[in-house]
Amino acid sequence: MPAINAPAISRYPVPKLEDLPEDIRARMLEVQEKAGFIPNVFLALAHRPDEFRAFFAYHDALMLKEGGLSKAEREMIVVAVAGANNCPYCFVAHGAILRVYARNPRVADQVGVNYLKAEITPRQRALLAFALKVSERSSEIVDEDYATLHAHGFTDEDIWDIGNISAFFSLSNRMANLIGLMPNDEFYLLGRLPKEK
Amino acid sequence: MPAINAPAISRYPVPKLEDLPEDIRARMLEVQEKAGFIPNVFLALAHRPDEFRAFFAYHDALMLKEGGLSKAEREMIVVAVAGANNCPYCFVAHGAILRVYARNPRVADQVGVNYLKAEITPRQRALLAFALKVSERSSEIVDEDYATLHAHGFTDEDIWDIGNISAFFSLSNRMANLIGLMPNDEFYLLGRLPKEK
Amino acid sequence: MPAINAPAISRYPVPKLEDLPEDIRARMLEVQEKAGFIPNVFLALAHRPDEFRAFFAYHDALMLKEGGLSKAEREMIVVAVAGANNCPYCFVAHGAILRVYARNPRVADQVGVNYLKAEITPRQRALLAFALKVSERSSEIVDEDYATLHAHGFTDEDIWDIGNISAFFSLSNRMANLIGLMPNDEFYLLGRLPKEK
Amino acid sequence: MPAINAPAISRYPVPKLEDLPEDIRARMLEVQEKAGFIPNVFLALAHRPDEFRAFFAYHDALMLKEGGLSKAEREMIVVAVAGANNCPYCFVAHGAILRVYARNPRVADQVGVNYLKAEITPRQRALLAFALKVSERSSEIVDEDYATLHAHGFTDEDIWDIGNISAFFSLSNRMANLIGLMPNDEFYLLGRLPKEK
Amino acid sequence: MPAINAPAISRYPVPKLEDLPEDIRARMLEVQEKAGFIPNVFLALAHRPDEFRAFFAYHDALMLKEGGLSKAEREMIVVAVAGANNCPYCFVAHGAILRVYARNPRVADQVGVNYLKAEITPRQRALLAFALKVSERSSEIVDEDYATLHAHGFTDEDIWDIGNISAFFSLSNRMANLIGLMPNDEFYLLGRLPKEK
Amino acid sequence: MPAINAPAISRYPVPKLEDLPEDIRARMLEVQEKAGFIPNVFLALAHRPDEFRAFFAYHDALMLKEGGLSKAEREMIVVAVAGANNCPYCFVAHGAILRVYARNPRVADQVGVNYLKAEITPRQRALLAFALKVSERSSEIVDEDYATLHAHGFTDEDIWDIGNISAFFSLSNRMANLIGLMPNDEFYLLGRLPKEK
Repeated sequence: MPAINAPAISRYPVPKLEDLPEDIRARMLEVQEKAGFIPNVFLALAHRPDEFRAFFAYHDALMLKEGGLSKAEREMIVVAVAGANNCPYCFVAHGAILRVYARNPRVADQVGVNYLKAEITPRQRALLAFALKVSERSSEIVDEDYATLHAHGFTDEDIWDIGNISAFFSLSNRMANLIGLMPNDEFYLLGRLPKEK
Repeated sequence: MPAINAPAISRYPVPKLEDLPEDIRARMLEVQEKAGFIPNVFLALAHRPDEFRAFFAYHDALMLKEGGLSKAEREMIVVAVAGANNCPYCFVAHGAILRVYARNPRVADQVGVNYLKAEITPRQRALLAFALKVSERSSEIVDEDYATLHAHGFTDEDIWDIGNISAFFSLSNRMANLIGLMPNDEFYLLGRLPKEK
Repeated sequence: MPAINAPAISRYPVPKLEDLPEDIRARMLEVQEKAGFIPNVFLALAHRPDEFRAFFAYHDALMLKEGGLSKAEREMIVVAVAGANNCPYCFVAHGAILRVYARNPRVADQVGVNYLKAEITPRQRALLAFALKVSERSSEIVDEDYATLHAHGFTDEDIWDIGNISAFFSLSNRMANLIGLMPNDEFYLLGRLPKEK
Repeated sequence: MPAINAPAISRYPVPKLEDLPEDIRARMLEVQEKAGFIPNVFLALAHRPDEFRAFFAYHDALMLKEGGLSKAEREMIVVAVAGANNCPYCFVAHGAILRVYARNPRVADQVGVNYLKAEITPRQRALLAFALKVSERSSEIVDEDYATLHAHGFTDEDIWDIGNISAFFSLSNRMANLIGLMPNDEFYLLGRLPKEK
Repeated sequence: MPAINAPAISRYPVPKLEDLPEDIRARMLEVQEKAGFIPNVFLALAHRPDEFRAFFAYHDALMLKEGGLSKAEREMIVVAVAGANNCPYCFVAHGAILRVYARNPRVADQVGVNYLKAEITPRQRALLAFALKVSERSSEIVDEDYATLHAHGFTDEDIWDIGNISAFFSLSNRMANLIGLMPNDEFYLLGRLPKEK
Repeated sequence: MPAINAPAISRYPVPKLEDLPEDIRARMLEVQEKAGFIPNVFLALAHRPDEFRAFFAYHDALMLKEGGLSKAEREMIVVAVAGANNCPYCFVAHGAILRVYARNPRVADQVGVNYLKAEITPRQRALLAFALKVSERSSEIVDEDYATLHAHGFTDEDIWDIGNISAFFSLSNRMANLIGLMPNDEFYLLGRLPKEK
């Protein structure tokens, strides 16, 4: 089946690298240096430089900071929320990142489809249950949810992290679905081969 | 009924003004100057300065920029999405802002409860139908949605605006619900009195 | 924003006061005497005198009788159910009545948008949880629901009251949405000003 | 399987006939005369005489009046709504009445389970589609719904009838589910035997 | 109301008995011998002989085998799942079989509309709660569900039976709805008359 | 992250190859010969030999027969339905088979997460829309659905195929979720490497 219908990476114009503001181009080149390619989310969101800057500032504040959640746990939230929102970009791209961080070629597909069946710890199940509640039914959050997470060893600051990552990717999934953002080919395979570990 | 159970404005500690980084305090004082009080969202999110900065940079990029949507139309999106997400803070606070921008004391309650019955234009009904689709079922967005909005005179850039405002407040509603953010008393009445118009 | 699209108060003809049967006109004048205006639900339902009489007989049997629920608590049920049914008329009109009875300018918006965040007592949260279950999932009512309410001090007769108020306004919201009933302008502001308390 | 667990007809006390107010007892005896037994809804709701009177006044105003809907069509609405609300009393009792009025032993089960597969006319399918919309999603009623029904020959007054019957039984189903109302044994068989036609 | 719109028993051609493969015809004659008529599911599925054979082999493996569930309990699952899937064929046809096995003319309608109000044992309520979870939300099955059923005396093998019956009729309901399968007239009345017991 | 919590392949005992009936063992060895490993669904379902035989007879009747749907199109249905049912086994295992048949390493993840964004033809989008309707809302299938598929060139027999594949995997997903069936490690990578094409 040739990709007769291969969608563009975005419904909107994708700016050329040479036309971008210097700070945005620098950010892209930095990612390319590290990952070997520029993830499509950078290219597509660069259509709006101010929103691009705020988006990645928010992303970095949540995903790069120190804290009680491991990098793999943060990516688990992203993948579970992407599954709930039927967002192919985040499911595939962050699935790749989760495989790399977790050094586990199976966990991303498991968490994205049904975290209750995934090979994760009870603490991580509680984390994902809450992240999905923030994503799907945030208006129903009550004191008992906090107590459940405390019982698994999460602090209030961890809970803020879980909730804000879930909320941020609720935004991200909606934007990706709005513009029809498609994952780079590289993401589908990344972290699946034994030699990569 | 005395407010025997009045919730705190946030589940998390609210920093004192004097303890805040200079840029954040300046932002708050600027808002206070203009509105007469500091909306609780500023106080509560200041608990995390980096996230605060990214949040308001994103907000400003969407809500303060020029574009095809009026300020009242942008606030309509916020109020309709807040209703769908059962978020009291955004329903009440942005309801107030909508009343002021629209110079209409009824439209915020109408749009928040059921935009199909609100005293708005057909163009605005189409705008809100799409904003709610982005909020509730973004994975089902198809070309026909774009065509419908084009038929109402919206450009692709307007559609990005509608979608990103809806997506951003999907984040915002979830954060407000996570931390139990409560509206300032002032918002309940703002824009409801004839003399204010 | 002028009300360029202001909907009529009902999709159906609204009878003139002088054309109404004597008992119905008397009822309206009585309300007008007390409230200062005739709520639109009276005007719109008078299109069908027999149904009007039965509707208000039912209403009075539930809302005016003695019993274990305060007047404010009965109106809380109405407002919470109106929010769940996206009924602007009941949300706005009974929101006003709730503010007056509760002497609280905030509680109606809170209860209508998300009772879990409202400044109410634990007993009232249990009351609203059950009222919404009757409204949304009455087929799932089980003995445990009765036990929960008993534990909050509600008697079986109180539970009948809660359930029947919720059921009656399930009817009322559907009728209001069917005929496109719009609230009187007066309701939006009623009970919001300090001097009214 | 003996009825080891046969539920009482109501969670609430059922008054004795001799203890009832005269008008209510008269109404019951009249029904008994006609049907051969007293439907449990009369017995159970008599626990609250004022609500009983309003309930049946409303019922009669909708179900006994002249109008564009046949008696069978009105009962179809009741049965379809009872199915949607998972209300055994109305499903079984009004299913019996529908079989009798329609002189068809199959149509009640069909309409109660899935009106789209029932042996009814296109006009009746449109009627039931709208009745279920009033019951399930009344906030989404728009002008197009009225136009669709007009195209099937329904007048605005017929539409009010459809909507109000659907709304009234939304109340009725919730009350029946609240009190655990069970159908009389007679209803299960009524209208199913050829000789009854 | 004559059956002016009586649907065919299937959207697809129904083969004549004499055109069927020998084993399939033999199966039908055997059923006819026992029941007095050939249920429409046999006639309609014979359109595809290989699928017919697999379907009934699966059916027999689940419904005719020995095990911890009584025949009436297996049919209860079928009827409850048919109600949840709005499948008129299985609701009516298996309702009849349930009435016969349970020797109870009321239980099928009760279980099909709302098992929580049916005259069944607590063990059977637990059985149906789980069967419906398998049908509606199988991805959420967790260890606690197994523990709940164990507490009611069900073994792991019983749980497999419950689950597989629910899953098989999830298939069956979808096929019946796909082809518009209608119940034989005989099923509507079967098991409802006292003399049949 | 070592697989500290790696679930067993099934909640139920998995029989040893040497203890299996001859025909079932033969089937497994045949699959192993072809695929290089025995998919876990064979091992887990062998716990019940009669159900195993019926399950695979049904599977083969649908998936191996000639007909208007390509093998890749049949697997697309399976993957889309697995996504809707949050079934990790079918998502991962049939995702692998789809990648192989379609010779496309991306299409399975796309179809499983959101077929509306997948690189497939309009005909295949119509096919998947209907397959998901059979899976999620089969009671709402109407003549218009058949007409839509006819317009895309599907025959009535193709529609039966689509519907029955969707229905069969509705069963399969529920069984997999019931027993906690986990995919073989091999499936996660299969069909993702260029050299495999």
